[in-house]
Amino acid sequence: MTSTNSEQTKWRGYAIHDNKKWDEFKVIDFQPKQPGDYDIDVKIAYCGVCGSDVHTLTGGWGDAILPLIVGHEIAGTVVKVGPKVQSIKVGDRVGVGAQVCSCLECENCKSDNENYCPQMLDTYNGKYPNGDIAHGGYSTAIRAHERFVFPIPDGLDLEQVAPLFCAGVTTFSPLKRHGAGPGKTVGIAGVGGLGHYAIQFAKALGADKVVVFSHSANKKEDALSLGADEFVMTTDEKALEAQTGKIDLFLNTADVANKSHGGIPLPTLLKTLRLHGRLIIVGIPDDKFEFGTMELMGNGGMIGATHIGSKKEVLEMLDLVQKKGIKGIIQSYPMKDVAKAVKSVKENTARYRIVLKVDI
Amino acid sequence: MTSTNSEQTKWRGYAIHDNKKWDEFKVIDFQPKQPGDYDIDVKIAYCGVCGSDVHTLTGGWGDAILPLIVGHEIAGTVVKVGPKVQSIKVGDRVGVGAQVCSCLECENCKSDNENYCPQMLDTYNGKYPNGDIAHGGYSTAIRAHERFVFPIPDGLDLEQVAPLFCAGVTTFSPLKRHGAGPGKTVGIAGVGGLGHYAIQFAKALGADKVVVFSHSANKKEDALSLGADEFVMTTDEKALEAQTGKIDLFLNTADVANKSHGGIPLPTLLKTLRLHGRLIIVGIPDDKFEFGTMELMGNGGMIGATHIGSKKEVLEMLDLVQKKGIKGIIQSYPMKDVAKAVKSVKENTARYRIVLKVDI
Repeated sequence: MTSTNSEQTKWRGYAIHDNKKWDEFKVIDFQPKQPGDYDIDVKIAYCGVCGSDVHTLTGGWGDAILPLIVGHEIAGTVVKVGPKVQSIKVGDRVGVGAQVCSCLECENCKSDNENYCPQMLDTYNGKYPNGDIAHGGYSTAIRAHERFVFPIPDGLDLEQVAPLFCAGVTTFSPLKRHGAGPGKTVGIAGVGGLGHYAIQFAKALGADKVVVFSHSANKKEDALSLGADEFVMTTDEKALEAQTGKIDLFLNTADVANKSHGGIPLPTLLKTLRLHGRLIIVGIPDDKFEFGTMELMGNGGMIGATHIGSKKEVLEMLDLVQKKGIKGIIQSYPMKDVAKAVKSVKENTARYRIVLKVDI
Repeated sequence: MTSTNSEQTKWRGYAIHDNKKWDEFKVIDFQPKQPGDYDIDVKIAYCGVCGSDVHTLTGGWGDAILPLIVGHEIAGTVVKVGPKVQSIKVGDRVGVGAQVCSCLECENCKSDNENYCPQMLDTYNGKYPNGDIAHGGYSTAIRAHERFVFPIPDGLDLEQVAPLFCAGVTTFSPLKRHGAGPGKTVGIAGVGGLGHYAIQFAKALGADKVVVFSHSANKKEDALSLGADEFVMTTDEKALEAQTGKIDLFLNTADVANKSHGGIPLPTLLKTLRLHGRLIIVGIPDDKFEFGTMELMGNGGMIGATHIGSKKEVLEMLDLVQKKGIKGIIQSYPMKDVAKAVKSVKENTARYRIVLKVDI
């Protein structure tokens, strides 16, 4: 520990030391980034378990910086603020998501699109410009720039909101940017950590109809109770065919690519699009997608991807969550059970978001 | 010939009888579709040679209906109109493009999007609902529904305008629909039959900047004289890198896919997109495209495709062509040289659009 750290803040986390031993976590001490004038230290209470954590732990997206502490669905309490921080004070309840740094000066940063800053830094498995390592939220505390720390409105529960800072805003942002709202039919593939929020957001944003696509029949009841108007089994060819040309905006939250696309081959999925409809992919499969131009020509459709959301969108989302009483379906684990938690996400058995409670 | 055909109309065309012998054309008599109340018979004067003709002749898009008469960039004079035709009369100069039929009743047809009608019929290599074969414009005459026959404004030359009915509107429509105009930077890959119109349309629509990407250094002069503001050699990595994040709307007119993408690998091309930029593919490569979600995530970009244009857009395009003095760069061939013409297109040596003059 250096003298620059808050005296009451322990910097300890659950780390792995080898991507091959991705479920062998050990509690280690770590060094946070050097403090900056706009930095905020957050004592972490809860951290959600995201599919990205699993991809990074297992090396699916490439070798990681070791030792590795993941986690970017963070909720906690502010314990220290830098001298220039204005919007947040010690004692505030806040969240931190999947991004902790950007240049703050480019066109994107200046237009509330800092989540698309070319110099953005992920919350973990990344290096700050000065070489400091960014560590994630499977830990006691995190230090981040004010821009990437989000005040949590009164009345919202810390454990409940933690997953909103990645799973939530990752679906809220594309729904908002691509026009989910009155007059629109929204398709959502995958009922999981992301999808179960997406269904609620699409309805809350006023979409005329939300059609959920899944290969798990046992998710139908949940999908409908979350607000879906229709549930389509992706193994039911007739039901898929009946959706041809119906969907204005299709959010794919299923973490699979190509022909095994959650049971839906990509061409079939593209066929569901209405004229100039959009298929937006919010997972990041390890595999590549393949498509022929003909598959997009018939309806003038588009395929896109998206990257989390901006602070502005996080605040809008929290406001919507509060107003509409949106709730995640959460499984609570003590953080010592982190190995069990990430295995559950990897095996796709989480229902629907696991949140770890800090216990160190 | 049936008695329903206009007596002065000869229905003869240059046909192939085998996709393997795709450059062996013979003049044959053919039967046009049965006449309908809204049908118009056009005596063809000129027909442009499109890449689609080559794909269909060679069987690149699958086996064709034989004998096959291709051609869908048609300009000529009306010789007969059905009893319910109102907007066009005998003697009018008209064009016909790549579509000759749609249901005229669906949501798309009723909203000036008949080019996306699920029941649309291509100008050739297709069958009408009653089984009649649709034959193309490498011929003396064509019969088509009024909706798919376009009046040519006075002062525009028949030979000059023929390619506009496919190459022209295929680039004009996506430029218009995806917002090419003031404040936008438009990228165009490929300087050929389509690209050389796209450059002129993008400028005429008021785009701030048009950046042309090509792997042929010898097209630089033409690109600039057609209105391009910048010319980027796709083999020049530094020049490509300098375009990172610059392009709002990228039209890919190059007829190649994946890594050989006219010299530009798809990921590099996607990198040129500005935030939420769009890459629209207007050729139909025989091959498939492959991409990773990560390649679209950094800028929230989208990949789309497009299908010709509507009658409304054809008329808008002709108006723009007339007002701005837009001119194609045309090579004139007598129709008897059709084999030489299609080979030139296949070998990518046409500069930039070959137009056949009817000689039978």
